[in-house]
Amino acid sequence: MKLSITAQLDYTIRDEADVLLQIEAASDDPAQRVIAGKMRVATGSELHPVPVETGIGRRTWTRGAGPFQVEYAASVEVERSVRDIADLGTTPYAELPGEAVPYIWPSRYCQSDQFESFVAQQFGALTGGAKILAMADWIETHLDYVPGASNAQTGATDSFISRQGICRDYAHLLISFARAAGIPARMVSAYAWDLEPQDFHAVTEVWLDGAWHLVDATGLAPMEGMVPIISGRDATDIAFMTIFGRADFNAQSVRVAKLD
Amino acid sequence: MKLSITAQLDYTIRDEADVLLQIEAASDDPAQRVIAGKMRVATGSELHPVPVETGIGRRTWTRGAGPFQVEYAASVEVERSVRDIADLGTTPYAELPGEAVPYIWPSRYCQSDQFESFVAQQFGALTGGAKILAMADWIETHLDYVPGASNAQTGATDSFISRQGICRDYAHLLISFARAAGIPARMVSAYAWDLEPQDFHAVTEVWLDGAWHLVDATGLAPMEGMVPIISGRDATDIAFMTIFGRADFNAQSVRVAKLD
Amino acid sequence: MKLSITAQLDYTIRDEADVLLQIEAASDDPAQRVIAGKMRVATGSELHPVPVETGIGRRTWTRGAGPFQVEYAASVEVERSVRDIADLGTTPYAELPGEAVPYIWPSRYCQSDQFESFVAQQFGALTGGAKILAMADWIETHLDYVPGASNAQTGATDSFISRQGICRDYAHLLISFARAAGIPARMVSAYAWDLEPQDFHAVTEVWLDGAWHLVDATGLAPMEGMVPIISGRDATDIAFMTIFGRADFNAQSVRVAKLD
Amino acid sequence: MKLSITAQLDYTIRDEADVLLQIEAASDDPAQRVIAGKMRVATGSELHPVPVETGIGRRTWTRGAGPFQVEYAASVEVERSVRDIADLGTTPYAELPGEAVPYIWPSRYCQSDQFESFVAQQFGALTGGAKILAMADWIETHLDYVPGASNAQTGATDSFISRQGICRDYAHLLISFARAAGIPARMVSAYAWDLEPQDFHAVTEVWLDGAWHLVDATGLAPMEGMVPIISGRDATDIAFMTIFGRADFNAQSVRVAKLD
Repeated sequence: MKLSITAQLDYTIRDEADVLLQIEAASDDPAQRVIAGKMRVATGSELHPVPVETGIGRRTWTRGAGPFQVEYAASVEVERSVRDIADLGTTPYAELPGEAVPYIWPSRYCQSDQFESFVAQQFGALTGGAKILAMADWIETHLDYVPGASNAQTGATDSFISRQGICRDYAHLLISFARAAGIPARMVSAYAWDLEPQDFHAVTEVWLDGAWHLVDATGLAPMEGMVPIISGRDATDIAFMTIFGRADFNAQSVRVAKLD
Repeated sequence: MKLSITAQLDYTIRDEADVLLQIEAASDDPAQRVIAGKMRVATGSELHPVPVETGIGRRTWTRGAGPFQVEYAASVEVERSVRDIADLGTTPYAELPGEAVPYIWPSRYCQSDQFESFVAQQFGALTGGAKILAMADWIETHLDYVPGASNAQTGATDSFISRQGICRDYAHLLISFARAAGIPARMVSAYAWDLEPQDFHAVTEVWLDGAWHLVDATGLAPMEGMVPIISGRDATDIAFMTIFGRADFNAQSVRVAKLD
Repeated sequence: MKLSITAQLDYTIRDEADVLLQIEAASDDPAQRVIAGKMRVATGSELHPVPVETGIGRRTWTRGAGPFQVEYAASVEVERSVRDIADLGTTPYAELPGEAVPYIWPSRYCQSDQFESFVAQQFGALTGGAKILAMADWIETHLDYVPGASNAQTGATDSFISRQGICRDYAHLLISFARAAGIPARMVSAYAWDLEPQDFHAVTEVWLDGAWHLVDATGLAPMEGMVPIISGRDATDIAFMTIFGRADFNAQSVRVAKLD
Repeated sequence: MKLSITAQLDYTIRDEADVLLQIEAASDDPAQRVIAGKMRVATGSELHPVPVETGIGRRTWTRGAGPFQVEYAASVEVERSVRDIADLGTTPYAELPGEAVPYIWPSRYCQSDQFESFVAQQFGALTGGAKILAMADWIETHLDYVPGASNAQTGATDSFISRQGICRDYAHLLISFARAAGIPARMVSAYAWDLEPQDFHAVTEVWLDGAWHLVDATGLAPMEGMVPIISGRDATDIAFMTIFGRADFNAQSVRVAKLD
């Protein structure tokens, strides 16, 4: 599937501030090819990309003062074989490679250690991919998708109690459940085709049978049209933009369209 | 300084369990050279080292069942130039390299976002290394070193309130304060010469003027005799041993002696 | 039902300490009559009873130093008409009397405000006593009774996540759910006939149709044999003993036997 | 001092809702005499006062639908002898009367148990009223008064870390410190003469030498012009208005003027 992606961020920075952007389609995800991608700040601020040391994607530093508009446009060829993960097995801890280990622990928003009893009780009879799919189903069934119900402090334990949230919260819960069951899990920001309303999306990657596999606990967009941006332990690592100073929001839009 | 290091861990694993060991002196820390290092499990369990993707050190997977004794012995040449960091400057966010970025955010035990007002109030007049040294002083002055006062759930906010803790808690506080001031900071486990009583130690690394610098907020051991093992965002990443199953503690000892 | 009750507490107080005892069968619970009740401290420390300002029961101050043994013995006539509460209605907020109001808010261990969505989602179709019974059923079904799984810091949100606890935790959850649904609820410590193993018990009282009604979310003992001691907002108010100093536990026993 | 008090609350209730008002000058505070006091809802909704079981003040139930305006006007004679509490002593636990006991425990917003080490470290050399005054000074010195820095979830531990808050947060901290030192403390809402800007105020009462004594950790208004409304364990019990349903804020004003 060939997709056209545009993202526009429009803020006003009071004084002056450093800014971290994480909005480019990942060029190191084997399931997608970025044919053309261009990010620019309207004021012409220089962009300094830096690599992420783990996972996929990259980060870009820039600076702003006053009006701050960012535009990103890309066309991406996605060939995500959406295989059913139900038959994939859990890798024993002692066989996990270095790249999977950071994703077995609890993290800031994913307090997986607190969910061990619940996960054993609820999903103990299943293993591997079947377990992950049951977890995603449970989350989709028991959570209401309520924009505004969560904020930057909300973690998986909060969402488990409030039973409300957005894509970020669904992902945090699935990551927490997976890790509590000994399955490495990380968070991935993504552009998503056919997501309504169009916005940045957040999904989950789980490590099964020696590879990462994408899962979307919200079920809001088809897996074939997912375009990962960057991965991390949880929302901490993958915010699309961080302004290190005071700023006001003006407008923001994301558009993902099918080209063929 | 040439040091002889031995560590012995003696546990009994009920049933069978995967185990992650992080007790080898780091061979990729530029300030030390591991002349000879040998880790073995008494039962002869195979060891599977895996790299850490960020920072220094490596992890080793193994398995155990029943009596589980680990022995590590090494001789290490340390040439840690203990420069005074007081004159080192803070690197602006937008100039941070990829390797420093993961250490600017809050993490599981280091809720740095909650300390921003306090840090501005208390240390706002200082910058760079002088700020870090003032933070370390504040922590050493205001905390009591009380073994048993904290546990695996204790984070920096808890220690800030209780005013008690051990090396782990001192490090978590310093990391939180540093990040709240825009200075990347990470946690490092270490062997420490002249530490009383002898034990695994935990210290902090801060990013100043383009490099990582070790700081020990406890002031309990001389910096020249520090032998880093592994680094991470906080205690989550660097536990010396994780047994993924039920186990009982029998005995444990660490010895660091000067050889010349 | 006529019951014989004895409770024995055996501690050693280091130095000297004030002690608060809350172990006498309530003499102001209309469903029971304390025929004879006697509490004494082995060392002969004076007892200073003080009233509770809300709810039932009373508190007793005393002091101890060194060996500290308390013995309480009573015979109590209980005539608890165990009516089915299923048909009782919820009292609208604006019709609640002063004595019920303190029990509509969240309290230290009962974070009822966080459960509002869950309670609406799960129990929204029911009202009054039927709702309370469904909540008690849910708790009994979803929690495992695991001594040692909780401690003095554990609140309802923790138990909701861990799905484990003891009578105290079951009561905290039921209180939280009830308050989240607009039904005043408080905690009651009690002696319980036919409870295995014998121990102090904790149950819940809910305000329905103008009166308090006992409910036991654990289902571990028959309601007819409950002998309330004292009521409060949550475990904070009703601990059977508080020693304001350091002390060591030696032994403790509770016995409730049927006399006729 | 004779004071004229008016308070006006203007909200719009979506649908219909029960409302709890706690805005009348307490008629049972021995230091003040309510000469004339009148509360009314513009729509003429009936008012149902209910007593508080502990402390001072009373609560009033009413109902609203759509526009909801409340007006309270009173003239109050205050004769608060503002004695220096520095010489008052701490009452030993075992001599506390029933009315003081509920205020020795941690409560929802006042996690006093977590402050015991800090309080011993910082204020351990002092006792009684002198200790309370030192605590109030510490709070006034270390906190910045920042409207908007806290919300309905903010407790004393949060304010201790953030070092910011409003009168409510100052009171929660003082209550927590006092209880951690074994001094019963409760929260009191009040009208305050010479408070800028004029608003509902929150202060603290501590139990010293057998009586409650008002203390204002903010130091923002003179003690002689304080007119208590209602007391409770913390902000949970004393909110000036609770609307049990959805409502929008329109306007609100408080005026306290000296009459002679």
